Amino acid sequence: MIAEVITIGDELLRGEIIDSNKSYLSERLLEIDVHTRFHCSVLDDPADMKDAFLRAADRSEIVLVSGGLGPTRDDITIEVLAETFGRQLERHAPSMAALEAFFERFGREMSPSNAKQADFPVGSDVLENPVGTAPGCMLEAGRTAFFCMPGVPRELYQMMVEQVMPRVAKRAGGQPMVVRSAILRTFGIGESTLEDELTGVAHSEHVQLGFRTTFPDNFLRPVARGVTEEEADRHLEEACKAIEEKLGSLLYGRDDDSMEATVGKLLVAHGATLAVAESCTGGMIGERATSVPGASAWFLGGVQAYSNAVKEGMLGVPKDMLEQHGAVSEPVARAMAEGARERLGATWALSTTGISGPDGGTDDKPVGTVWIACAGPDGTEAHEFLFPFDRQRNRQVTVQMAFDWLRRTLLGVDREVPRWLNQRDQGRR
Amino acid sequence: MIAEVITIGDELLRGEIIDSNKSYLSERLLEIDVHTRFHCSVLDDPADMKDAFLRAADRSEIVLVSGGLGPTRDDITIEVLAETFGRQLERHAPSMAALEAFFERFGREMSPSNAKQADFPVGSDVLENPVGTAPGCMLEAGRTAFFCMPGVPRELYQMMVEQVMPRVAKRAGGQPMVVRSAILRTFGIGESTLEDELTGVAHSEHVQLGFRTTFPDNFLRPVARGVTEEEADRHLEEACKAIEEKLGSLLYGRDDDSMEATVGKLLVAHGATLAVAESCTGGMIGERATSVPGASAWFLGGVQAYSNAVKEGMLGVPKDMLEQHGAVSEPVARAMAEGARERLGATWALSTTGISGPDGGTDDKPVGTVWIACAGPDGTEAHEFLFPFDRQRNRQVTVQMAFDWLRRTLLGVDREVPRWLNQRDQGRR
Repeated sequence: MIAEVITIGDELLRGEIIDSNKSYLSERLLEIDVHTRFHCSVLDDPADMKDAFLRAADRSEIVLVSGGLGPTRDDITIEVLAETFGRQLERHAPSMAALEAFFERFGREMSPSNAKQADFPVGSDVLENPVGTAPGCMLEAGRTAFFCMPGVPRELYQMMVEQVMPRVAKRAGGQPMVVRSAILRTFGIGESTLEDELTGVAHSEHVQLGFRTTFPDNFLRPVARGVTEEEADRHLEEACKAIEEKLGSLLYGRDDDSMEATVGKLLVAHGATLAVAESCTGGMIGERATSVPGASAWFLGGVQAYSNAVKEGMLGVPKDMLEQHGAVSEPVARAMAEGARERLGATWALSTTGISGPDGGTDDKPVGTVWIACAGPDGTEAHEFLFPFDRQRNRQVTVQMAFDWLRRTLLGVDREVPRWLNQRDQGRR
Repeated sequence: MIAEVITIGDELLRGEIIDSNKSYLSERLLEIDVHTRFHCSVLDDPADMKDAFLRAADRSEIVLVSGGLGPTRDDITIEVLAETFGRQLERHAPSMAALEAFFERFGREMSPSNAKQADFPVGSDVLENPVGTAPGCMLEAGRTAFFCMPGVPRELYQMMVEQVMPRVAKRAGGQPMVVRSAILRTFGIGESTLEDELTGVAHSEHVQLGFRTTFPDNFLRPVARGVTEEEADRHLEEACKAIEEKLGSLLYGRDDDSMEATVGKLLVAHGATLAVAESCTGGMIGERATSVPGASAWFLGGVQAYSNAVKEGMLGVPKDMLEQHGAVSEPVARAMAEGARERLGATWALSTTGISGPDGGTDDKPVGTVWIACAGPDGTEAHEFLFPFDRQRNRQVTVQMAFDWLRRTLLGVDREVPRWLNQRDQGRR
């Protein structure tokens, strides 16, 4: 069953609006196992619309059309659709009554152009719109069913779920498949390596595996199908298990589990707390920690030690250490983490100090040089990294790396530094 | 001149991703007076891609293609484009050298599949990608020019502006109108109020005014046209001046001037420095401050005082004050700002303490209650706010409000709290 989504409107082609209706409709279709093969957008232009409708009738069996159902003169979707397939328009009495009632209820005058919203092609199936003035309709043309819906997202969403999906599922025939999917989150492994490592894993006739990069992470998306909910769930869980077995601790979370939420759960499970001492990240670790509801159970706070005076005064980093080694150095990273751990009375402390760029690099310490230290009950570890990104991304990956390091430490898994990052040196305890 | 945008990728048709590249590309084209007539998206499927390419060559003169330039096996855009128009692929030596240098620089191993990113159709014009591994290319087929770009937004953006737009403008030929645009950034005024206030301002036959919400800000985008650069620049500057006169200090920056960069510049101009004491924002003010290159000239650092013990120990907030008034209170906000200002030796200090949600609200202090204090050479001011958003947005608007407050103070303009926020009470100095 081939599906196509057509969105209509000059504003889309001018780029004024990011067209999220397309992805919404395709996502919903996938839930009833109908795959979208084409997306297209055209202007409010009769010739272009007709062309798109004819082409869709030729290549697709389900065509979802959004936009152009309003009362203004550029809203011509129904008119053009009727003309394209040689249908007359007729007034749909229940829709006209609903329109009149709508205007009466809000004490607004109904203009003649509003009445056209009650006109539909002969033989079409009118789709109610309980949250707006424009009903939709389904028109069959040969083996193809066109579903016209309003472009206003909340009207579209409701009509799609309540009116369109049941009709599409019925047309898909027989016993529609149930679809289940998950997001598995990885950090520290590149997309192509990930794809190589998972060749033959979790791919089957029941499961498809997708990949998506969300810097600095890579996400996996297994999509499983079954005749029943139980079967789809079982295929999904089997796929997730196979991926977990293959990737181990490279996987840090599932679905909405962010890195910081995962670390928070582990800290709570250990009855432990976290403090931070942030120089190059300026507060980003704390910001991420406190983005998790209930973070006060495990996050105490920290010091944004951006200037050397703050490193010295608020964290007790010795002045001569700063002078001798510079702020971006192993001893300073260690002293920052230890100072934060001690002064805030935390179980663990993470520190960052680095040169994020674009300026401030030297031959010895180029832009992207970052020291991260982790102080805990068994002592302090520090690593040096050389990140290759721009200022903001260097900071983002620093934060993710710091959290991930603590996660691995709490899990007791290998503390090997992720492979895709260029680690210059490895500090010893 | 008819333009078309084709985006490629299974993930688009599954609806996993909202395809913002299309609107980005069409918006940019419009700036050089080229109007997009068609948008379409196809799967990573050679037959569908070929079909889309042939159709585009038939109906459009400029075709922008995004996606499918990566190293994985479903990245086949260049291959299919070459085959569609009967071209051989050849290795592009400078791209291969750039790829090798990229991998060497970051100490990563180059896989054989990466090498295909240096293969292009004979006779095509390779488009540099200084921020990623996949170069793009321009291929002419009859009267149509295809421009292939990566799907990764930041790579696409740079290639579009630097490589594609000049080539398209040249093809548009004749005496193309020169287009100039600016972004004017406002905070503290709603979009519809903004639109009302600017009715008749900056709109003319030479200038169009667009609006865009980027939470928590609203941006204005005047787009000016002229026969010469001078004329376009003049129309643009006239429009910007008219808007500035109308909006005054509601405008905080132009183009890339973020709120934090604007505040940084003002602090430097005053020879002043900033410290922070962040509870509910957890480090976000400092993170934003340090996102500005060169922030060390004005940002000293701060304390992420998430727990009460940290407010007490690191900022000197009296224990009995915390017990009597609670952490989310005017005296605590004031004591936090004053503690940070004193202990870090800063000219100014901003503090935040609030209930971001979703839990933790009470009848007296519902979710969204935030106190912000600003301590400076002339004393301390504090305001209470009640923000109506979710946890993350409550924090974002808190940070913007804190920076904006300091901006208004440094500018010496009215300190009236922006109108669109529900302010419960106003603290006195």
